[in-house]
Amino acid sequence: MSFDITILGSSAAIPSKGRHMTSQHVRIGNQQFLIDCGEATQHQLLNLGISLHKIEHIFISHLHGDHFFGLPGLLSTMHLQRRTEPLYIHGPRGLDEVLLASFKHSKTELNYKVFLYDNPTMFPEVIYENDKITVETIPLTHRVPCTGFLFREKQKQYRIIPEKLPSGLPFEAFRALKRGENIEFEGKPINYQDVTLPPRKSRSYAFCSDTKYSKSVISKVYGVDLLYHESTFMNRHLDRANVTFHTTAKQAGEVAREAKVNELLIGHFSARYADLSELLAEAQVEFPNTQLAIEGEKFSIIETD
Amino acid sequence: MSFDITILGSSAAIPSKGRHMTSQHVRIGNQQFLIDCGEATQHQLLNLGISLHKIEHIFISHLHGDHFFGLPGLLSTMHLQRRTEPLYIHGPRGLDEVLLASFKHSKTELNYKVFLYDNPTMFPEVIYENDKITVETIPLTHRVPCTGFLFREKQKQYRIIPEKLPSGLPFEAFRALKRGENIEFEGKPINYQDVTLPPRKSRSYAFCSDTKYSKSVISKVYGVDLLYHESTFMNRHLDRANVTFHTTAKQAGEVAREAKVNELLIGHFSARYADLSELLAEAQVEFPNTQLAIEGEKFSIIETD
Repeated sequence: MSFDITILGSSAAIPSKGRHMTSQHVRIGNQQFLIDCGEATQHQLLNLGISLHKIEHIFISHLHGDHFFGLPGLLSTMHLQRRTEPLYIHGPRGLDEVLLASFKHSKTELNYKVFLYDNPTMFPEVIYENDKITVETIPLTHRVPCTGFLFREKQKQYRIIPEKLPSGLPFEAFRALKRGENIEFEGKPINYQDVTLPPRKSRSYAFCSDTKYSKSVISKVYGVDLLYHESTFMNRHLDRANVTFHTTAKQAGEVAREAKVNELLIGHFSARYADLSELLAEAQVEFPNTQLAIEGEKFSIIETD
Repeated sequence: MSFDITILGSSAAIPSKGRHMTSQHVRIGNQQFLIDCGEATQHQLLNLGISLHKIEHIFISHLHGDHFFGLPGLLSTMHLQRRTEPLYIHGPRGLDEVLLASFKHSKTELNYKVFLYDNPTMFPEVIYENDKITVETIPLTHRVPCTGFLFREKQKQYRIIPEKLPSGLPFEAFRALKRGENIEFEGKPINYQDVTLPPRKSRSYAFCSDTKYSKSVISKVYGVDLLYHESTFMNRHLDRANVTFHTTAKQAGEVAREAKVNELLIGHFSARYADLSELLAEAQVEFPNTQLAIEGEKFSIIETD
């Protein structure tokens, strides 16, 4: 099953040449999600050849414009392109007001249903779940209520070794083995460990949007395969990071190291940095397996034993 | 004095590859204006190297998203880039609600003043005026209240022929001649016609945003130097144009011909047309001096005698 994150925007606050505001497209198996939706997210989806129509859930981290001003336009285009599938939006309280005001005077009645859910911001909570994954909030520390999102595969099943199974085994017994249960067949016990391989590892992606550096994030993202963490500033602008409730590249590297994640992506770069390689180098001192989350890059989390 | 219109977007309703939603930048002398502000207008200004900061007035034709969803982001970027000059926005009633909702939850207090004026939609009215130009509304026929905008230079002054003036003429007399008044100097009458050339022609630009074809527009834009008229559809989709209150390229050409304008720009093209040359050809049958108003094109109205 695929587990891909495509970066639509790497820029903090304002666009700069070639850099767009925050948005990421997440594809897990045949499900598609969008995280944040800065202005011109629909243009970026178009540029990267990603269809709007397969996006089922949109997660908005907070109500600073660079993270949601693209939402009315995206919804409008879905409408004009005759979407009928419902759309689920998970965002901070107040997002409904913006959407209602945006469409009120155009007398637009969207021809698909939008379900809007307020993000809980105090504690981590599962806000979406299906048979394969959960999406949980990560409370963050910013100037307005803000959450990250943790995408995590559920515990997977034991993998049957077909040649070790007796023939004629009923389907229910087969499924019990996959769940890791011992069974009896024709009077003989079968231990699941003898006929299965352990489940593949459940993969996880944590998106940490705008936030002041905070140790409390470390436990929330502990051990994830891939961590996106904002890195608005270089550490030489630490004062500016503190005042604006943002993180430096060095601090993002520290979070990744302390949380023992596998890989770190940094993004949300201040327009003052023309050369992003210095941000990368700073984070890599703390955590070598770091990459820049820049426009058009796709990061895949590979399934492993 | 320059009188330039730069096209930021040529697309109707939704973006397509390389085509953006409606916005135009107008420069008259040292004053800068923006007409409409579809999503990603600020990106287009950035791409074309036009500074946001010199824009004094923004004119919004109507509250369909493709004409104003870029406004909150533009205002936000002006704020973050420390604008202090006031900004004047002329838009349909209700625009204030959208802007207030957009900024409410980010707790943003813009560090410059925004003056918001409701556009009159029933009759043409001057909504902005300085010593050189007026901007007047053009009532249009669309599904929601909608106006175009007519930029017109005021009557210019008579041009003094210096070698025909007696020396020692006081400044007040000089100015009277420029206004086309006869004077007396040292007991002798001076007829302004003997010492001046006629004023240069006052130039004019009419922007006709989304509208059903309507003969009432013709008198409003009669004789302008440059007319922008929407041409969402080819005439083979006339039914669609009628239902959606839009105009075909043929009809736009007819308006230009009947209004005896000098030059026609067509734009706001439906994404269904990959090849815009067919829209151009259709309009040119009716009015040969037609051009496509596409991204990055700059149209200058030259000052003539």
